[in-house]
Amino acid sequence: MPGVGPKTAQRLALHILKRPETEVQALAQALIEAKKQIGLCKECFHLSAEPICEICRNPSRDNKTICVVADSRDVIALEKTREYKGKYHVLGGVISPIDGIGPEQITVQPLIQRVSQQKPQEVILAISPSVEGETTTLYIGQLLKPFTKVTRIAFGLPVGGDLEYADEVTLARALEGRRELD
Amino acid sequence: MPGVGPKTAQRLALHILKRPETEVQALAQALIEAKKQIGLCKECFHLSAEPICEICRNPSRDNKTICVVADSRDVIALEKTREYKGKYHVLGGVISPIDGIGPEQITVQPLIQRVSQQKPQEVILAISPSVEGETTTLYIGQLLKPFTKVTRIAFGLPVGGDLEYADEVTLARALEGRRELD
Repeated sequence: MPGVGPKTAQRLALHILKRPETEVQALAQALIEAKKQIGLCKECFHLSAEPICEICRNPSRDNKTICVVADSRDVIALEKTREYKGKYHVLGGVISPIDGIGPEQITVQPLIQRVSQQKPQEVILAISPSVEGETTTLYIGQLLKPFTKVTRIAFGLPVGGDLEYADEVTLARALEGRRELD
Repeated sequence: MPGVGPKTAQRLALHILKRPETEVQALAQALIEAKKQIGLCKECFHLSAEPICEICRNPSRDNKTICVVADSRDVIALEKTREYKGKYHVLGGVISPIDGIGPEQITVQPLIQRVSQQKPQEVILAISPSVEGETTTLYIGQLLKPFTKVTRIAFGLPVGGDLEYADEVTLARALEGRRELD
């Protein structure tokens, strides 16, 4: 399990052995239920207890933009900003030939189908800027351009960050991505 | 001195006491010389041993853009990217009323004079996005707009950063600053 090393594992195991049996049974039951009930939204592939997730079902969310992310945790991160009111599409990974992940292993095909059918006004690619993330962004961008406007999130100085502490690549991107002051 | 606490100070002092006298005299002399020789460039206010700094004197640097930064260390950081070929202007601080720093305490006036005389095609404001930095950017932007195109560097996800670990304000800025994929 991520973030659980041998010491933490032992601590957790001993903690569970100390708890009353009913409590341990409740935990085990909760794990089974969670695994049974939580699946992927049929529309956007975000984690969901229902066939269609809460975001896709929400009528106040704008159908005109689809924000494409690699993972469900990115949806959670973007939702925390409370800035985005459109829909999402979760790829379930990024293209990484070394790990044997091609476009067929992630939800690229359903995305193209969705975009060609729903004709959103804009698709925002919000994929982290690793080598694999860039490949995925460019690949999907090329496929979606015939259907709609494709944008990507901005790269540059993090807010609260200091110019002096930014790495050179980030600074170069911040310069390159400069915008006219309104 | 920045980054030197009581322990480091003691270690440095004891180290100096152990060195031969000639060496200590050479260090002392070097400090005096540095202080005597390094001043501010008359053109851009970057640190310089000459009246006009190396960047301002370099004929291969483009006169059409001036990049405005808070501090000389920001010039050094931007130079490391090897992406920027224009000139600089060092403000020598940011506007911070709490610390008693108004526009008169930094080199805003010389900047406006320089821009109105040299008529660059673009002024890039590359000031860190703190509250004071934002104030300074907006203030200078308003003053320079009558003379030239004013841009600011991009804010968003740092390169190599992960969406999941970005703070909400940075993510919101990255979304807001999204650009069309070329």
